[in-house]
Amino acid sequence: MNAEIITIGDEILLGHTVDTNSAFISRQLSAIGFEVTHKSVVSDKLEAMEEAFRIALRRSKVTIATGGLGPTDDDRTKRAIVKVFKRNLILDDDILDTLKNRWASRGQEMPALSQNQALLPQGATFFPNQIGSAVGICITEQERVFIALPGVPIEMRHLMTEQVRPYLAKMKIDQAMSIVTLRTTGIGEVILSEKIQPNMKLEPGLKLAYLPTFGQVDLRVVSTAQHQTEADEKAERLVRYIEKAVGKHIYGRDDDTLTGVIGQLLKDNDKTLAVAESCTAGQLGMAITDVAGASSYFVGGLLAYANDVKTAQLGVAEQILIDHGAVSEECALAMAIGCRKLFGTDYTLSITGIAGPDGGTDEKPVGTVYVGLASAHTTMARLFKFGNDRTSNRTLAVNSAMEMLRREILDICN
Amino acid sequence: MNAEIITIGDEILLGHTVDTNSAFISRQLSAIGFEVTHKSVVSDKLEAMEEAFRIALRRSKVTIATGGLGPTDDDRTKRAIVKVFKRNLILDDDILDTLKNRWASRGQEMPALSQNQALLPQGATFFPNQIGSAVGICITEQERVFIALPGVPIEMRHLMTEQVRPYLAKMKIDQAMSIVTLRTTGIGEVILSEKIQPNMKLEPGLKLAYLPTFGQVDLRVVSTAQHQTEADEKAERLVRYIEKAVGKHIYGRDDDTLTGVIGQLLKDNDKTLAVAESCTAGQLGMAITDVAGASSYFVGGLLAYANDVKTAQLGVAEQILIDHGAVSEECALAMAIGCRKLFGTDYTLSITGIAGPDGGTDEKPVGTVYVGLASAHTTMARLFKFGNDRTSNRTLAVNSAMEMLRREILDICN
Repeated sequence: MNAEIITIGDEILLGHTVDTNSAFISRQLSAIGFEVTHKSVVSDKLEAMEEAFRIALRRSKVTIATGGLGPTDDDRTKRAIVKVFKRNLILDDDILDTLKNRWASRGQEMPALSQNQALLPQGATFFPNQIGSAVGICITEQERVFIALPGVPIEMRHLMTEQVRPYLAKMKIDQAMSIVTLRTTGIGEVILSEKIQPNMKLEPGLKLAYLPTFGQVDLRVVSTAQHQTEADEKAERLVRYIEKAVGKHIYGRDDDTLTGVIGQLLKDNDKTLAVAESCTAGQLGMAITDVAGASSYFVGGLLAYANDVKTAQLGVAEQILIDHGAVSEECALAMAIGCRKLFGTDYTLSITGIAGPDGGTDEKPVGTVYVGLASAHTTMARLFKFGNDRTSNRTLAVNSAMEMLRREILDICN
Repeated sequence: MNAEIITIGDEILLGHTVDTNSAFISRQLSAIGFEVTHKSVVSDKLEAMEEAFRIALRRSKVTIATGGLGPTDDDRTKRAIVKVFKRNLILDDDILDTLKNRWASRGQEMPALSQNQALLPQGATFFPNQIGSAVGICITEQERVFIALPGVPIEMRHLMTEQVRPYLAKMKIDQAMSIVTLRTTGIGEVILSEKIQPNMKLEPGLKLAYLPTFGQVDLRVVSTAQHQTEADEKAERLVRYIEKAVGKHIYGRDDDTLTGVIGQLLKDNDKTLAVAESCTAGQLGMAITDVAGASSYFVGGLLAYANDVKTAQLGVAEQILIDHGAVSEECALAMAIGCRKLFGTDYTLSITGIAGPDGGTDEKPVGTVYVGLASAHTTMARLFKFGNDRTSNRTLAVNSAMEMLRREILDICN
């Protein structure tokens, strides 16, 4: 079944915002077997939206629009919807009560303008929004589904995962489909495919895609068949084949995250963790605590950005900094060891490197990063050579540190 | 004059690649006065491209398509062009010679497949590509301009800036355009508009848009007029009006970021900063060091996730934790003060709160966050009540902490 995504907003047309929403929606839709055939971006002018909605309804079974659901005058999505569907806007009492309660809980009265967000096209249903004031809107007509979501990424994501995806997953899809995503890290796309492809013969109805992101490659197995059991079994056969070929690089499946998997490992083994970060300056701690309940294993960390902090707080010997520099195996090891003394945890991770764009030398170019790990049994450091981009270097460093810890806990060779 | 961008490629439809090309093209077009009215993404299937090209030619004076110009069988853009424009593909000798020379200069013979890249729709002109093998293609017909560029970002950017932009800039533009984005924080969209809207009368040719993201709202002023000076002046009049209404909430313009602005303030005043983070666990440190060169003012930080770390490392009195709890004004203050002792910086920021989803109580529900600030002259803490979502609570806390620091440095009342 095909689907189409419409992003509304001048800021995206003007190029001031890169459209990440539609990529997220695409992945969610693919995961439940929809084929996204079109994406478009239109201005928030009424006529432009109407035209885009009409084109979409003509060619796509499911249309998801994002943006233009705010309370102000330049939020016109609902007005475009009622023109296209020839309906009226009606004040919904349930939504209004929720909005009033939300303002009241902050001790404030709801501004008059906010009432606009309780308006709903006649005959539409809505998806409640737990984290913002714009509900999602759903209209079905002549076997077409039209859904409007807010454009604020966090709210769109919340509604998409909690409400829209389960709703659409119930729609009758022409074929039975089974999708398994194997999540790998610590290995590139090319090497992965060299390990997997040579002797692989895909059964009919099986597809394997390599989907690289930052330091990770997802392997997506899509299996279609007449019946669900058949699709599931065929997918599992390919999964087992891949696991045999590259098993140690697979940290999880589907919605598993590396931080989530590591958190569970620490919990299961009743172990604690602390971090010492230089160039990532908090990104590792932040990533580890993305997972709710991280307080049962994450104790704390030291952001040792300045060298003085490395010596004074982490006990890195000044001689190490003089002889080897702050970006060195020796420093990464000393940071990990010092961190373990400071916080008394079972494991510590340390990161020190040159994120860029400045600070690189011939010997240690931008992208040079050392990750250290210390536990009761192991003290180790590894050198990574990433690229020129500050943001990706920091993200790759965090990813590599977490993968080192995963392998250490699981006793897979690092 | 309006323009439209078409991105070709399944990887973008599937959501595994975020479309950054079209944002780049938009900015280039806006800069020379074109109004981008539509963007779309289509698969590399022939029929899908044809449909997209036809729709674009109907409604847009200028269409720029990217992608599908490679030599292999699944690069079908030229085939779609000749079908839509009812022309033939013709081998262009100039392009062929250039290709052959390029291969020869590497000491290699041109593969047969590469000859496809010398095929040009009859009557089209081409933009030479200095850094790749796919030329840009340009067709004009009935006052419509259709341009096809390669999808590889570096080649597209090269052709867009060196060839397409100068070419299009010569076209007669009906209107001059001036765009200013005012970046605000610490105030919601609704309250902003209540402060700005009441007495505002927009001159003809002026538009004001509210663009909310996390804890920030961008105000985008778009001004169109016959001449550039007129457009610029009209935009500035509205900007001054807005500055008068909500000036203290405006931290910057256009590409300014809150972290960048704060970094510059710290640099200009020769001040240093350290952080003590509980619930954000590194996100504040990470945000501050997103900016290259942060090492000249950011010293380090302590991630005090566990209460033991708050007492042992930051010197928060155990009695404070017993009497008021870790999420309290008193604890935020003690963390900021302790952090200043530990790192000896001019300023410190502290964050302690309940990010959720668990840990909330009736008295302190999820979303309760205290931010502390300490300097030689000031010690303060503020209570924030955010929402239910862990990720947004952490981001909003970081944003609020940075805004507190900005106001403290600028001596704007907090």
